Amino acid sequence: MNYTLYYSPGSCSMAVHIALEELGVAYDLETVPIAQGATQQEPYLSINPKGRVPALRVPGETRVLTELPAILMYLARQHPAGGLLPVNNAAAEARCYEWLAWLVGWIHGIGYGELWRPARFTPNEATHDEIRANGRQVVLGAYTKIEQALADGREWAVPGSYTIVDPFLLVLYGWGSKIGIDMRANYSAWTGHTQRLLERPAIQRVLQREGISIGS
Amino acid sequence: MNYTLYYSPGSCSMAVHIALEELGVAYDLETVPIAQGATQQEPYLSINPKGRVPALRVPGETRVLTELPAILMYLARQHPAGGLLPVNNAAAEARCYEWLAWLVGWIHGIGYGELWRPARFTPNEATHDEIRANGRQVVLGAYTKIEQALADGREWAVPGSYTIVDPFLLVLYGWGSKIGIDMRANYSAWTGHTQRLLERPAIQRVLQREGISIGS
Repeated sequence: MNYTLYYSPGSCSMAVHIALEELGVAYDLETVPIAQGATQQEPYLSINPKGRVPALRVPGETRVLTELPAILMYLARQHPAGGLLPVNNAAAEARCYEWLAWLVGWIHGIGYGELWRPARFTPNEATHDEIRANGRQVVLGAYTKIEQALADGREWAVPGSYTIVDPFLLVLYGWGSKIGIDMRANYSAWTGHTQRLLERPAIQRVLQREGISIGS
Repeated sequence: MNYTLYYSPGSCSMAVHIALEELGVAYDLETVPIAQGATQQEPYLSINPKGRVPALRVPGETRVLTELPAILMYLARQHPAGGLLPVNNAAAEARCYEWLAWLVGWIHGIGYGELWRPARFTPNEATHDEIRANGRQVVLGAYTKIEQALADGREWAVPGSYTIVDPFLLVLYGWGSKIGIDMRANYSAWTGHTQRLLERPAIQRVLQREGISIGS
């Protein structure tokens, strides 16, 4: 039986889609388009009561697996030959978790959360613009730190190997363009990182399948 | 050389303190009291520019390791004999990451973040009360889900073994009391879980050392 990935095109679930494609494992796709409200409705809410993507149906498991870091780590560890986690170097592996927790919790959860989902932070619509503005500042501040980290000459987020962190950085790079940041002009090291990612056939296939274009 | 844990008493860093104590490894403690602003000042900002605890100094690593899930997973994997992660059951291990991502990102990052650090969400002090109120709702909604998860008769968060998730649930239980929730009256399964934790000698030692009392 195959894995099934529940995803919305261009969302953070694209990082899982890329991981599956890189690993060369068999999987099925179920589209749950956020823009059409599908994550907040049945039948998806019965599949994942959290109402978020990604979720991964794992053969033999009753409940889908949720939470981006958990899904990425699970796939990398289940298929170690794919080399998506430095499993023989505990310190390097820990740096992958460190990156993911920060990217997912701070930049996506709070930065883009405020920017795109202000109602999560207050039900009062009168303050949503101010929430969105703060979210943009969180994103910009964090993007400066990503650029600084990548600017030391490393090829990948965790020096030494391509890991589960890198595809999520690609998603965040694309989101930067989407909110009007001139990514190429502002983040040259990150742009180089993105160019390296865009050369990977697995990533090219996923972008084409999801209908996403990421300029660099 | 020992690990060094940078912590603030009663904060989420207590989960790491418990993990270190459970594992029986040698470590040193450095107090960085949040309430006195120590996480936002030198010398700590030079140690961890994120200005948060926990941070773990790992022998041989230049930079401290940050982010609660990363530190917990690192310690559990470095010391597998301690049994804090079900490393031979990938699905169960993935459920640990799933719990941690949700507890850390949603309940701590957004729920308690809004409640205790509204300035992270908007600089406008006039709306801080409304941010705090929303944070409390996030916490209450999530606490109901924790209770539901624990109410199926399982002994620990991930059925089958005590893991790195359980000590963080203890921290969150204590925070519930701190914000005025009657934990015992509202969450009977979670209260039972807390009682099991409070019987563990490692946890008793940490609570005493940090000067924290958790009623159940």
